Amino acid sequence: MNPNDGFRELARQECLRLMATVPVGRIVYTRRALPAVLPVNFGLDDDGTVLLRTSATSELVRAIDGAVVAFETDDVDADRHSGWSVVVTGTATVVTDPAEHECLSRTGPDSWVPAQRELFVRIEPELVTGRELVGGRTLYGVGPTA
Amino acid sequence: MNPNDGFRELARQECLRLMATVPVGRIVYTRRALPAVLPVNFGLDDDGTVLLRTSATSELVRAIDGAVVAFETDDVDADRHSGWSVVVTGTATVVTDPAEHECLSRTGPDSWVPAQRELFVRIEPELVTGRELVGGRTLYGVGPTA
Repeated sequence: MNPNDGFRELARQECLRLMATVPVGRIVYTRRALPAVLPVNFGLDDDGTVLLRTSATSELVRAIDGAVVAFETDDVDADRHSGWSVVVTGTATVVTDPAEHECLSRTGPDSWVPAQRELFVRIEPELVTGRELVGGRTLYGVGPTA
Repeated sequence: MNPNDGFRELARQECLRLMATVPVGRIVYTRRALPAVLPVNFGLDDDGTVLLRTSATSELVRAIDGAVVAFETDDVDADRHSGWSVVVTGTATVVTDPAEHECLSRTGPDSWVPAQRELFVRIEPELVTGRELVGGRTLYGVGPTA
């Protein structure tokens, strides 16, 4: 706990544990030179690799393949002014290995819609950061050190 | 409704109406050349201007003042595979006019923590986009045209 701002930095394993409790996160990337953000459901490997299941024709895939992106999850109780947020930052890559694709088709995140020519995207957990808010103490993300 | 992907584009006024129903959004910006995202509470003007209240010493302020940022809100029901997301994209600027600062101190978003030397940041609604998901139809954000 930092006494100046009222939030607690989370260790990597705590970040990954919290991420696994929510079904939807937000991928942050650049589209046409502008910041872009999109909610998506996701899977999470034990090592923190984020897995997305999308369509080969997706604009998202064209924008993020090979790029460094951020993937954010959070759970905030606005009434209690408490909650947490976790961000995984790393390179996004389309899974091209047929064996890995086949494995992910069975074990990876579900698709919420049947799509043709599905692809999987991995986001490497090069940086995993998170913080927990203590109820009634701080403005979420807009505290003095945000 | 686009029959190919199962989500419905939202008109600007509908986007703003939905944004006003949630207390927390996520500001998307660039920090040290990396994509960054942070949940924050916010206020919303009738014209779609997003208002944040933060500290003069905030790292966030240094990163976003004068930059184009995205501000995302959403509300997703993962069980029903339905919900919506809205993104406001525009230039963030610190409010420097004393009269406007005084006005926002009374009418702007609350701070969840007492902070010294508070600042307000405006995000101009240069682009307002949103979409609604229809239950059971599509993967949120990872549909064929995402």
